[in-house]
Amino acid sequence: MISKRINEMMETSSFIRKMFETGSELKAKYGAENVFDFSLGNPHALPPENFNSVLLKKAADKTRHAYMPNAGYPDVRQKVAEFASTEQQKVLSGDNVVMTSGAGGALNAVLKTLLNPGDTVIASTPCFMEYKFYCDNHGGSLVLVPGKKDFNIDVENIEGAITEKTAAVIINSPNNPSGRVYPEETIIALGRMLKKKSSEIGRTVYLISDEPYRKIVYDGITVPPVLKHYNNAIICTSYSKDLSIPGERIGYAAVNPDAEDYDNLINGIILCNRILGYVNAPALMQRTIAELQGVSVDINLYKKKRDMLAGGLKEMGYEFRIPEGTFYLLVKAPGGDDMKMVDLLLQEKILTVPGRGFGVPEYFRIAFCVDENVISGAMDGFRRAAEKAGML
Amino acid sequence: MISKRINEMMETSSFIRKMFETGSELKAKYGAENVFDFSLGNPHALPPENFNSVLLKKAADKTRHAYMPNAGYPDVRQKVAEFASTEQQKVLSGDNVVMTSGAGGALNAVLKTLLNPGDTVIASTPCFMEYKFYCDNHGGSLVLVPGKKDFNIDVENIEGAITEKTAAVIINSPNNPSGRVYPEETIIALGRMLKKKSSEIGRTVYLISDEPYRKIVYDGITVPPVLKHYNNAIICTSYSKDLSIPGERIGYAAVNPDAEDYDNLINGIILCNRILGYVNAPALMQRTIAELQGVSVDINLYKKKRDMLAGGLKEMGYEFRIPEGTFYLLVKAPGGDDMKMVDLLLQEKILTVPGRGFGVPEYFRIAFCVDENVISGAMDGFRRAAEKAGML
Repeated sequence: MISKRINEMMETSSFIRKMFETGSELKAKYGAENVFDFSLGNPHALPPENFNSVLLKKAADKTRHAYMPNAGYPDVRQKVAEFASTEQQKVLSGDNVVMTSGAGGALNAVLKTLLNPGDTVIASTPCFMEYKFYCDNHGGSLVLVPGKKDFNIDVENIEGAITEKTAAVIINSPNNPSGRVYPEETIIALGRMLKKKSSEIGRTVYLISDEPYRKIVYDGITVPPVLKHYNNAIICTSYSKDLSIPGERIGYAAVNPDAEDYDNLINGIILCNRILGYVNAPALMQRTIAELQGVSVDINLYKKKRDMLAGGLKEMGYEFRIPEGTFYLLVKAPGGDDMKMVDLLLQEKILTVPGRGFGVPEYFRIAFCVDENVISGAMDGFRRAAEKAGML
Repeated sequence: MISKRINEMMETSSFIRKMFETGSELKAKYGAENVFDFSLGNPHALPPENFNSVLLKKAADKTRHAYMPNAGYPDVRQKVAEFASTEQQKVLSGDNVVMTSGAGGALNAVLKTLLNPGDTVIASTPCFMEYKFYCDNHGGSLVLVPGKKDFNIDVENIEGAITEKTAAVIINSPNNPSGRVYPEETIIALGRMLKKKSSEIGRTVYLISDEPYRKIVYDGITVPPVLKHYNNAIICTSYSKDLSIPGERIGYAAVNPDAEDYDNLINGIILCNRILGYVNAPALMQRTIAELQGVSVDINLYKKKRDMLAGGLKEMGYEFRIPEGTFYLLVKAPGGDDMKMVDLLLQEKILTVPGRGFGVPEYFRIAFCVDENVISGAMDGFRRAAEKAGML
């Protein structure tokens, strides 16, 4: 009786729900402390101390919970633009920024603005598969192309997938689930290719850079700018990961002021932010993040967890590439069978996510944004699973 | 280069933007204090005192900004359900409730769950015209039928518009823009008719009750329950108006547990809340409103404004029906020309909204959620406009 499409989606997504339910059952049966849950990118770290002090200060101001312009408070947009200008090496003004309900809200407003019925959006695997829903929401579809073995995007593969139906390419660096940071020369090559192809097909192919993990990087790496290297580019991001506040739904979209159809693009995103029912990004969180530009949780804590997990798993023979950012480790499933490995780990009360959820069924994902005790506690289980998988 | 549909929407909605821009220009030119802005339903009232104390208490807890289940915190859903059970005279549990990003978020998640391509949704004029976008977002379209002269819905008109393509009927009581509260016998008759028609056409026609103004009512009136009178009904609402926090985007959808396709319906709404990019309703606001069930701003302040405005306008010969709820007054435009009247008022630096924005071009809307000084200050202008319109 409900929408056929939603009904189908619920059936196909029931596998993930089953995983989640199995996890809940395990926790109920053995106690949450005896289940090692690496399944969700839900940061264990508390928000940084100054988030709390700014939040309390802003919450004490009783006068600012009303509607503001759909794009957000002008002063907040200005502060966001100033910091983003540094990150993107492109001068942005507040007018170029639309405050949104997280990166998910930004992506939906942007895709609705861009997509005509039947249009495609290209993404490179491994990638965050919610993109599929986000494109489908607005009459488009996601086309997946394989990335390189080192998880970098393959610009030639993307180029090969571009047709007259292509409205946009989405990239996500640092990447969920691989932790890969795409090098600056790759972004430059991508920008050049998109410019060339846009002119060839007579249609602007936009670049959407989904980058909520920009600040979660290790070993002195910085994430290269995107707006600097392509005019028809839009940033979609959030404060969920750097401030550890994913439940609060605060983020933004920033449009390159040199984009060709700039006025329609920015006004379309503002309109879509409204008509999708978001109306505006949550008021108190807008005012809070405005004063926390550049602030993030202590990255060293994540680095310590990464090194602990990677060190332990490497010794057991698990194969992976050390992530340069994010809090995910994408590990090769022995024999290339993600479901089998996830199941072996489940027998050890270890919850992970099969790679097919990211377009790479030969891998599984471990989210290490957990307490260190979860990592140390799971090590024996990882070893036993490796043995059962015939790795040892 | 952007979506054709969004481009068209921007062109057709440019009139409202022009109104808004004219208002901004007037304020810049004559000073905001000399412009009488009755255009927006943006409450002037501050949130109630206990909103602030609860918010500060919840904000001091540093541990609760992470993801929670997409439907919201279980304890919050339970508290919302308990209060809604009283309002709806139907026993609800937390499982029947999905926390959303305001009523706009609830409506979008519900419509996406229900609509197949080409489906229709029926609403009665006058009504909130964003419904048109919300239906269009998910492949459906809004069908408008005229309400009665006293702004009550006309159940026969709605019945006449139902076809096999009809997925739902939306009602909004207390009504924006008329302030009408639909009587209980009307809701009962609507429920009966929908049951009969659903069985006739072999398809469940859902009833969506959009009721963010339920607590903003005057003269001892209470808003009748909806879930009590129709099983296939869903409530969409928010705390925006009763707590004066529309910028914070917090509301919920509540599904009648006796709905025919209940499991798919509730799980579909939860899925759509996620895949539309909302993910979940803002965490801190969920925790805050949980402790403010049944709390609202001082309704007497709105009543005073209503009576001040209505008293003054009546004396000048303006015709209207005294609103039983909301903070809107829907006034007959002299000669039936809303644009002309809105323009005459604009010459007096009074901003109102033409009725065509609500499907009733012979009226204009005055939002009286403003400071009393705005009302008293505008009286001379209303009188001069009445004179120019030939009313006096």
